[in-house]
Amino acid sequence: MKLLQEKIRQNGKVLSESILKVDSFLNHQVDPQLMKAIGDEFYNRFRQDGITKVLTLESSGIAPAMMTALNFGVPFVFARKRKSLTLVDNLFTAEVYSFTKQETNTIAISKEYINREDKVLIIDDFLANGEAAFGLLELVKQAGAEAKGIGIVIEKAFQSGGKQLREQSIRVESLARISSLQNGRVEFLEEVNYEQTAI
Amino acid sequence: MKLLQEKIRQNGKVLSESILKVDSFLNHQVDPQLMKAIGDEFYNRFRQDGITKVLTLESSGIAPAMMTALNFGVPFVFARKRKSLTLVDNLFTAEVYSFTKQETNTIAISKEYINREDKVLIIDDFLANGEAAFGLLELVKQAGAEAKGIGIVIEKAFQSGGKQLREQSIRVESLARISSLQNGRVEFLEEVNYEQTAI
Repeated sequence: MKLLQEKIRQNGKVLSESILKVDSFLNHQVDPQLMKAIGDEFYNRFRQDGITKVLTLESSGIAPAMMTALNFGVPFVFARKRKSLTLVDNLFTAEVYSFTKQETNTIAISKEYINREDKVLIIDDFLANGEAAFGLLELVKQAGAEAKGIGIVIEKAFQSGGKQLREQSIRVESLARISSLQNGRVEFLEEVNYEQTAI
Repeated sequence: MKLLQEKIRQNGKVLSESILKVDSFLNHQVDPQLMKAIGDEFYNRFRQDGITKVLTLESSGIAPAMMTALNFGVPFVFARKRKSLTLVDNLFTAEVYSFTKQETNTIAISKEYINREDKVLIIDDFLANGEAAFGLLELVKQAGAEAKGIGIVIEKAFQSGGKQLREQSIRVESLARISSLQNGRVEFLEEVNYEQTAI
């Protein structure tokens, strides 16, 4: 996705060989027009798949999931990392290790909001080692629903998550795929121009 | 806001005299069409105010803030409750006690994203005791920016936050104002029909 690649080049900050800071437009300050374009693109890529629900993880997945779900005309659910007084039981749960925050979270969704009839599109901001994606897939599996695919805003393709998911025949659509953050520079994998094939 | 009141009546669950569960459409599963209508309404109410930035708090404020910011054509910032590896210093911070989660969080935003030229619209899902709102106002104050007002999706008007804010001449626009949750029933305060005055 050209607009996203440009935004990353212009505003992303390479903090190390594995950390890209995009908090000026994606996961702290958020560019709503970019999120709209991202939601449009995920819709184009999954529009044939009969999606009935979008699933993401708080907090950075919420904005792109919101715009994607709006296009599909279906609800989205954000898995929570911690329990609150109003989310206490009747849960599907999974364990997710965050390398960025260096901690393991139990992620949870209420059993009320995904069921075995659902065709689920998982959305997240980043894909690196795949921890969050596998956790969300686990929730879908527990619900007996069908995961139709995973839409990722930025994939760190030099880490193993994308490969592991695709080896399990899980469809992963990443809008920007980064091959390297070495020498302080963002390099992208060549990308199929999906925009040309979308209506 | 009629659509929101109807949604609360149809899908809200009164768990106690102070807790309303709206996680089927607002803060766990989210209705994107409703969020769009909420974003439109906040835009109508604050469109004369020269808003340059929308500020909210993760996680439940993100969806309404997203749709509001999209209307204004300005970025939004969501304050974080915990630090990550990419949000470590150069912060404005405030302490916020959550009655729902029974804990005190330090909320933080990067100093990069709000400055003294900004006219800020604060958005949140709930207003009860006003803890989150006062915390967000504190961040705006530290930035030297101007808080033009607070847009709240659901105000528990029987708790003290709204009164305290308005007594300090802070403009609070709540789309649904609940006067009571007694006897398992949601009662709304009478509401000015802002929709009629909007273009």
